[in-house]
Amino acid sequence: MGKQFATRAENYSEWYNHLVEKADLAEHSAVKGCMVIKPYGYSIWEKMQQALDQMFKDTGHENAYFPLFIPKSFFSKEASHVQGFAKECAVVTHYRLKTAPDGSIVVDPEAKLSEELIVRPTSETIIWSTYKGWIQSYRDLPLLINQWANVVRWEMRTRLFLRTAEFLWQEGHTAHATAEEAVEETTRMLDVYADFAENWMAVPVIKGRKTANERFAGALDTYCIEAMMQDGKALQAGTSHFLGQNFAKAFDVKFTNKEGKLDYVWATSWGVSTRLMGALVMAHSDDQGLVLPPKLAPYQVVIIPIYKGLEELEKINAKVEEIRKSLIKKGIRVKYDNRDTQRPGWKFAEYEFKGVPVRIAIGPRDLESGTVEVARRDTKEKEVLQMVDLDNKIAHLLENIQDNLFKKALSFREQNISRVDTYAEFKKVLTEKSGFVMAHWDGTPESEERIKQETKATIRCIPLKQEEADKKPGVCIYSGKPSEQRVVFALSY
Amino acid sequence: MGKQFATRAENYSEWYNHLVEKADLAEHSAVKGCMVIKPYGYSIWEKMQQALDQMFKDTGHENAYFPLFIPKSFFSKEASHVQGFAKECAVVTHYRLKTAPDGSIVVDPEAKLSEELIVRPTSETIIWSTYKGWIQSYRDLPLLINQWANVVRWEMRTRLFLRTAEFLWQEGHTAHATAEEAVEETTRMLDVYADFAENWMAVPVIKGRKTANERFAGALDTYCIEAMMQDGKALQAGTSHFLGQNFAKAFDVKFTNKEGKLDYVWATSWGVSTRLMGALVMAHSDDQGLVLPPKLAPYQVVIIPIYKGLEELEKINAKVEEIRKSLIKKGIRVKYDNRDTQRPGWKFAEYEFKGVPVRIAIGPRDLESGTVEVARRDTKEKEVLQMVDLDNKIAHLLENIQDNLFKKALSFREQNISRVDTYAEFKKVLTEKSGFVMAHWDGTPESEERIKQETKATIRCIPLKQEEADKKPGVCIYSGKPSEQRVVFALSY
Repeated sequence: MGKQFATRAENYSEWYNHLVEKADLAEHSAVKGCMVIKPYGYSIWEKMQQALDQMFKDTGHENAYFPLFIPKSFFSKEASHVQGFAKECAVVTHYRLKTAPDGSIVVDPEAKLSEELIVRPTSETIIWSTYKGWIQSYRDLPLLINQWANVVRWEMRTRLFLRTAEFLWQEGHTAHATAEEAVEETTRMLDVYADFAENWMAVPVIKGRKTANERFAGALDTYCIEAMMQDGKALQAGTSHFLGQNFAKAFDVKFTNKEGKLDYVWATSWGVSTRLMGALVMAHSDDQGLVLPPKLAPYQVVIIPIYKGLEELEKINAKVEEIRKSLIKKGIRVKYDNRDTQRPGWKFAEYEFKGVPVRIAIGPRDLESGTVEVARRDTKEKEVLQMVDLDNKIAHLLENIQDNLFKKALSFREQNISRVDTYAEFKKVLTEKSGFVMAHWDGTPESEERIKQETKATIRCIPLKQEEADKKPGVCIYSGKPSEQRVVFALSY
Repeated sequence: MGKQFATRAENYSEWYNHLVEKADLAEHSAVKGCMVIKPYGYSIWEKMQQALDQMFKDTGHENAYFPLFIPKSFFSKEASHVQGFAKECAVVTHYRLKTAPDGSIVVDPEAKLSEELIVRPTSETIIWSTYKGWIQSYRDLPLLINQWANVVRWEMRTRLFLRTAEFLWQEGHTAHATAEEAVEETTRMLDVYADFAENWMAVPVIKGRKTANERFAGALDTYCIEAMMQDGKALQAGTSHFLGQNFAKAFDVKFTNKEGKLDYVWATSWGVSTRLMGALVMAHSDDQGLVLPPKLAPYQVVIIPIYKGLEELEKINAKVEEIRKSLIKKGIRVKYDNRDTQRPGWKFAEYEFKGVPVRIAIGPRDLESGTVEVARRDTKEKEVLQMVDLDNKIAHLLENIQDNLFKKALSFREQNISRVDTYAEFKKVLTEKSGFVMAHWDGTPESEERIKQETKATIRCIPLKQEEADKKPGVCIYSGKPSEQRVVFALSY
């Protein structure tokens, strides 16, 4: 506990892995590439789900559930889609095991499927094959559906939360009568994601569009939110796709419009995943452990008694029960750790490591003076507070911490965005400073690809909003050809 | 809509299928054996999940997530477990597709897994292999974990919700220091399930133990709740297993007890699934459509305006907005359907078919007299109510409907439980009356198996509680050998 692991400066990657595993968020499973999400980590994910789910419902979406398996032939119907996912598909070929003559358990060769099933890496194909039965007329549109599910994309090199063979996510799949409505939905959901990232995760994001190279397989346009981690790398935290009529054409989904004419339906899809857990850890945590934004922390407050002997503890217990009730009444999530098997110092370190936003310590002298010691995890500041009106003080403090985390992350990002005009400068910044680099690009996949090969930096997005200076035309740092605006380059997760 | 489909008396099975599909609960997918859960159906499932999840948390459980895939070797470690599930396993053998020379998409033979992966049919094996890393001492116990997940059990003959290749469920997996604690947990969760079935679903259940024949593969004891459907058949609505030390031994999970000695850990597992959706439909619905208990209905109240012309509609809209707000404030889920594209009669039939517990109709004359017409779905009774205090009246009515549905189902079950003392009577009741049959059984798998072969009736459970008369010893209806108590026989889903 404490400092017995790599600091961010020493080894960022090791620091991250240690934190995720030792703070009980997740661990590698015995199944290659798959993770186990542990109760403490899952509790954060549940809070993310609840907040997002409410935002989806508030924007008119309903949840549904579609099959885990996709017939290979469905998967192949949209050409660029299958090309994009073919190399990472888990394939079910048989449906039975049997006992071999030597007593071992083997796959029964007689139970071979006539058509292989793909474990969904994403559900556009199975969903659009279903929508064919649901959509006949403009009256059936828009169809606004979301699914919470597990998906599988086979990965050889995995990292907990950031890249795993199986992960949890939500995928929205909507159908519209016009291209305009579909584009509007695409950006609406991008805004929902940005809102969630900034106001719940306290992670500032840049909204933008992907280049053609980086688009979702099957999309006409991919929008994304990009966040900066503490090592200066970018993490794509959510994507929203305008799919045009590609999937409607692949699955022959037509509708009668108001004029009585048949047309193909317009589509969007959008998703965020347990990857957000990785972003949360990497955006705020420090060398002493996790730092969780109050809105997503399993416990927002931990109360620890400082005592000698059970008689003192009992007195403290009685007082804490009052405090606990008043905090719960305020909607605050509180844990009281009065286990007699661990010392206060051990508990302090434990909850610091687990990122609990506020710690309240209370001892016999506090009982006398009507005070408690309150420590905040983000700045590590401590103060002695009167118990009077403590619930309001703590509620206010939690808001303050949430706010502070966002501002700190925003300030870090601003300090780590560079503007460069030459390729030499570009490479220098990437090597020496890292962070996001705003630079001109000629708009061709060729320049983009060469820059990626030579520097590993990719175009994270073409920002939707940017400062006046960045919107001005210029020349591409690589080719010297004309460029309309600067784009965001970065190394990324 | 209305009566243009089979009644329960005409064809119970067709009635069920029609209801599930046309009331937008679920449909068969293009993937053999897998279903699509539609938004209306999923919304009911979400409410089931929320209620159960809270009950699990209130009894000290936390959620976590374990991998979808289970290595074949893990699966084989507990002998009876693999025997129980081997015949219905989806097996992943490859992890990549590729484009064949003819342009078609094929499984890449070079991407064959060195060890096949089973798509989880249940997670005991992967979870206990994980628990080995989590449990060292009695201080780590009990470990009380639940998982919400999809599972796959290959089925050739499927029925929506009742038997599908993929279904959604929750599976609790707990670890304990003693057999007594594990048994206590097993029955505690059985009680939670019974509480949920009776108080949320309004479905009365009989709690009992399964015979050895019907036990979960790997369990020492399986407890279940059994519900009676309107055709008299039994539906197993939830199971809770005492697993002894079987999985701890298979995965070598030992702990140091308080005396400092090493011992294997004691286990339970328990689950309910989307099967509950089938039970819900079959327990309450009638020949006019779904009948939903208010606690699980997506909308508890639908309000329908009766009007001529938009001017009248606008006046009604204004009044309904007041009503709607007061109901929402009371925590009631309300839908106001003022679409001008459908007539009131169509809407009445639609919401009756969808099982909305309460319908409020409001027209111009109601505005004048300060009244509304309120119709309840369960009894189809209508009454005109003064708008004054309407929120409380509706809240009370919803409680009344919830209560009435349970009582009606309980009374139906009581009328359809028979007590027989001879095999001839037994067969007669099964053929002529159906329902549950309380009869003596000698406790041997042989008699149980023969009765099943000859009548298709199985022992649903050995009830935990029963009337004095049933607890008395008697003689087995099949063998004439001594029997300690009557057990519940029935045809089942």
